[in-house]
Amino acid sequence: MTRIVRYPLIVTLLVVVSLGFVTLALAQTDPLPSWNEGAAKQAIVKFVEATTTQGSPKFVPPAERVATFDQDGTLWVEHPMYSQVVYCFDRVPAVVKAKPELANVEPFKTVMSGNREAIAKLSMDDLFKILAATLTGMSVEDFRAEAKKWLDTARDPRWKRPYTELTYLPMQEVLKYLRANGYRTYIVTGGGQDFVRMYADEVYGIPPEQVVGTASGTKYGYTKNGKPFLTKEPKLLLNDNNAGKPEGIYLMIGRRPYAAFGNSTGDRQMLEYTKAGAGERLAMLVLHDDAQREYAYGPALGLPATRVGTFTQALYDQAKREGWVVISMKSDWKRIFTFEP
Amino acid sequence: MTRIVRYPLIVTLLVVVSLGFVTLALAQTDPLPSWNEGAAKQAIVKFVEATTTQGSPKFVPPAERVATFDQDGTLWVEHPMYSQVVYCFDRVPAVVKAKPELANVEPFKTVMSGNREAIAKLSMDDLFKILAATLTGMSVEDFRAEAKKWLDTARDPRWKRPYTELTYLPMQEVLKYLRANGYRTYIVTGGGQDFVRMYADEVYGIPPEQVVGTASGTKYGYTKNGKPFLTKEPKLLLNDNNAGKPEGIYLMIGRRPYAAFGNSTGDRQMLEYTKAGAGERLAMLVLHDDAQREYAYGPALGLPATRVGTFTQALYDQAKREGWVVISMKSDWKRIFTFEP
Repeated sequence: MTRIVRYPLIVTLLVVVSLGFVTLALAQTDPLPSWNEGAAKQAIVKFVEATTTQGSPKFVPPAERVATFDQDGTLWVEHPMYSQVVYCFDRVPAVVKAKPELANVEPFKTVMSGNREAIAKLSMDDLFKILAATLTGMSVEDFRAEAKKWLDTARDPRWKRPYTELTYLPMQEVLKYLRANGYRTYIVTGGGQDFVRMYADEVYGIPPEQVVGTASGTKYGYTKNGKPFLTKEPKLLLNDNNAGKPEGIYLMIGRRPYAAFGNSTGDRQMLEYTKAGAGERLAMLVLHDDAQREYAYGPALGLPATRVGTFTQALYDQAKREGWVVISMKSDWKRIFTFEP
Repeated sequence: MTRIVRYPLIVTLLVVVSLGFVTLALAQTDPLPSWNEGAAKQAIVKFVEATTTQGSPKFVPPAERVATFDQDGTLWVEHPMYSQVVYCFDRVPAVVKAKPELANVEPFKTVMSGNREAIAKLSMDDLFKILAATLTGMSVEDFRAEAKKWLDTARDPRWKRPYTELTYLPMQEVLKYLRANGYRTYIVTGGGQDFVRMYADEVYGIPPEQVVGTASGTKYGYTKNGKPFLTKEPKLLLNDNNAGKPEGIYLMIGRRPYAAFGNSTGDRQMLEYTKAGAGERLAMLVLHDDAQREYAYGPALGLPATRVGTFTQALYDQAKREGWVVISMKSDWKRIFTFEP
C-alpha cells in the first residue's frame, strides 16, 4: 500500500512543478513586449484568443484568418514624406538624362531646380506626372533593379538609416503574433504594389502575393530575340486608397479581413468593411502623437494638421462610435524602433 | 568478438529489410495513378524531383514554388460551352423578369425566344451584353447566392451531373502532387474570377486568394442603414486571356510560375512567360483528342475546329519547338473522371 500511495504523490508533485514551469514560461513569452499594458494591447490579445481558441463561440477557421495592414504610417514612418515619393523625386534626374527634352517641361524643370519651396508647392497633378515618369515605361526587371539600388543606398534624413529600418517594432510584433496564430497577414497600401513588394518579404515577412497596393497595368511583349517581358504602363488599375482598399481586398484576396490596421482617413473604408463582417472583428488606428520619438500629426485631438497621413477628428469620432481601437504611439508603445537606445 | 560482429549484422539486416519496405511503399504510392506511363507523366515527375530535391542544381525554394492552371478545358470540361456562359444564359429569364423592358431588346429577346439556331449565331458583342447583365449590377453577396443556387442544381446535358463533378482526375492528381511537394497551385482562368472562386476550394482545394481570373471592378457603397457593401460593376479590370494571363499573374501573384498548364491559344503567353524564367520550368498543354470519353477538338493534328478552347496547329508546333509537353487525353490518361465505370 505504501508504494501505491507514494508513486502517485511523486507524480503529482512532478506534474505540479512542471505546470508551474509552464505557467512561468507562458507568462515570460509576452507576444507583444513593446506594448504597454492597456486597452490597445488587450484588444489585440482578446481578439486573437477569441478567434483562434478551439471551442470559442467566435472561433475562425484557419483558412479564413486574414489580417490587413496599411503600410505608410501604420507599419513604418511616413513623415515628412512617403518613402516612395522620395524615390520618385530621386529618380527624376535619371529620367531627365534619358529624355533631355523633359528638362524644360514642368514639373520636371522645378524638380531639377532643387528649389525646395517651389517643389513643396507642386500640385497633385504634377505629382502624378512625376510618378508616371519614374514608375512606368520600363520593364518590370529594370524597375526592380532601380528600386533595389535606391532601397540599398537611400537614407532617411532624420535617422540617417535605410527607410527599411524605420518600421514600428510594436507592429512587427502584431504581425508575428497574428501569424503565429494562423493568420495570413496582408499589406493593403495606397503605395505602389510593385514598390512595396520589393521589400515587404524582407522587412515584414510578407511575400509579394500578400501585398495589395495601388497598381498600374503591365503590357506583355517580346524583345528582339523573342523573349517575353512585361512593361509597366501608365494605366491605373487599382487606386488602393479609401474605397479602393475594400475593392482591392475583394479583387486580390476575395475574403473579408477579420482584423484591419490603419492610421489615416485613407483606411476608413477598409476598417468599416472589416467590422461589417459577422463574428469578432478587430479594427485599429495608429495615432501619431509622439513628436519626440517619431512625429505628431492629426489633426484629431488638436494635433498639427498634415498633408501626409491625415487622421481627422471625424475619423477619431467614428472610431470611438464604432468600437475601433485607437493606438496612441506615445502611451501604448514602450519602444517604437529596434534601433532606439 | 562474436557479439560485436553479430549486433551490426542484425542491424544491417533490419536496415536492409526496412529499406526494402520503404522502396515498396514508395513504388506503391504512385502520385499520378490515373496517368499512363509516358513522356507526359515523366515530365511532371522529373520536374517535381528536380525542383524540390535538396541539393538538386534546379532546386526551387518553397516560397517561390508557384504553379498556375488554366481552368476550362485544362482542369474540367469546357464543351459544348463554358459552364459560366451556360450560367449567364440560364440567368437571363430572371434578369428580364426584374427588368421587363429588356424583353424586347436584343440580345435578350433572342435568348428568351429559345430559338437555339438564332442563339448560336449571337455575336461576341451580344455575348458581352449578356455577361454584363447577368454578372454585374448586384451586390457581391447577391451574386454569390445566385451562383451557388445554380451550381447546386444545374446539370451538364451529357453526363447529367453537376458541372463541378466534371473535373479531370489526372489533373486533380497533378494539383495534389504539386501541393504535396510544397507548390502553391493557382487557377489562372479566362473565366470570371468571382464565379470560379465560388467552387475552386471545394472542387480543387484552391482557395479564393489563389484564383486569378477575368475580373470586373466593384464599387464600395452603403445600405440605407449605413452598412457597407460592394457592387459588381460592368468595368473590366483584367481580361485574363492571352497576354492578360501573364499580366494577371504579375498583378495578383507577383511571381513567375515554375509550372503552367493550359489547353488553348488563350494560354500561350502564360506558358511562354513561365518557360522564359531561369532554371527548370514546366509548360504543358492538354490536347482534347478523345471523342469517346470526353471531346475531340483542335484544329491541331486535323482534329475538328471549335470556337470553345481552340488548340491551333501553330500552338502545337510552338509547343514542340519550345519544349512544352502536349498531354494526349486519349493516350496519357488512364481514367478521365472519377465517375467513370
